Amino acid sequence: MKKGILTICLSIATVCVMAQDVVKLPDPDKNVPMTLYQALQQRKSVREYSSKDIDDMKLSQLLWAAVGINRPDGHLTAPTAVNAQDITVYVCRKDGAYLYVAKDNALQKVSDKDLRKEIASAQQFAAEAPISLVIVTDNAKFRGGSTNGPTISGAIDAGYVSQNIDLACEALGLVTVPRATMDKDALKKELKLTDAQNPILNHPVGYKK
Amino acid sequence: MKKGILTICLSIATVCVMAQDVVKLPDPDKNVPMTLYQALQQRKSVREYSSKDIDDMKLSQLLWAAVGINRPDGHLTAPTAVNAQDITVYVCRKDGAYLYVAKDNALQKVSDKDLRKEIASAQQFAAEAPISLVIVTDNAKFRGGSTNGPTISGAIDAGYVSQNIDLACEALGLVTVPRATMDKDALKKELKLTDAQNPILNHPVGYKK
Repeated sequence: MKKGILTICLSIATVCVMAQDVVKLPDPDKNVPMTLYQALQQRKSVREYSSKDIDDMKLSQLLWAAVGINRPDGHLTAPTAVNAQDITVYVCRKDGAYLYVAKDNALQKVSDKDLRKEIASAQQFAAEAPISLVIVTDNAKFRGGSTNGPTISGAIDAGYVSQNIDLACEALGLVTVPRATMDKDALKKELKLTDAQNPILNHPVGYKK
Repeated sequence: MKKGILTICLSIATVCVMAQDVVKLPDPDKNVPMTLYQALQQRKSVREYSSKDIDDMKLSQLLWAAVGINRPDGHLTAPTAVNAQDITVYVCRKDGAYLYVAKDNALQKVSDKDLRKEIASAQQFAAEAPISLVIVTDNAKFRGGSTNGPTISGAIDAGYVSQNIDLACEALGLVTVPRATMDKDALKKELKLTDAQNPILNHPVGYKK
């Protein structure tokens, strides 16, 4: 009997921890009125951000555009070389860092730390955005992929996702800049990446100051 | 007097050759109704094309979206690392190969040859599209850029342009697939590239079969 109660208590505790570690996002509203050609006309890099937070709906819309599933067979908004699907996107904000899990439309917590300073590195402006997205390519998804830095295929794939973020920000009333500068060693450790995973680009995202 | 007539004849001949070598495109119509989020929902790779030609207006719209100028200061629809603007796009079709000159909205002929087979390489389907776009990155635009293959920055920049082409095709009723396979040596020669310029991606583009 005591063992049964213990099991129940442990199960409840596990569910509580899980609930904290996984943030389910609202279904992304895809009825965003801006046309593609308007977004292309407006596309620009912005390096000043207000402190206003980005709500979960906007985040869900942004992440879906970046690297969401757009077909029943699991294909994505961004193509990848030989359909390797080597790219993952992490959301870094004040309350920690999260992996975007496209198939569940959820954020999986990977760190309690605010990593925006590690992303900003020497460029302080980048730490002021309420969130930063980190684009990571996984060499293990390519045949013969070396573990020393990103591959050319991975870099191309990062470009696809980064341009989706650029354009989605325009359509969602947000601003961003794609950056290659960041403390990659610190991020590899804090995001719990494998040796084969490389942070390659990041995007501070916020509202215009 | 005879010398004067000769000079006039030579001038006329030069203008005629120039006229053949430069194709001015119509101003791109940017009133394309598809929203960005519709384009992202529809984004997919298609490998079968009808033989229907792409007219100059569609080509102008597509090339502007890919790597056109979107601000008075000369910035582009696609970002580039450290604003290196290392990317050029070539249009290859039955009547030859052309460099897209964004600032003039024009095509500059570089070869009289139909290079679609060199682009298709072993994948015959790609030669059947009425046009193929070749994305080239120039290592000389980066400090310390080596001439041995593309740089990581150049690969990211190619990804930006390639995703613009993917999305613009959806909005313009065209289909495409980004490809890394092509006969790069033949293309470097025929497109008259420098040692530092690398063909990195290509896009057969056409109407759905």
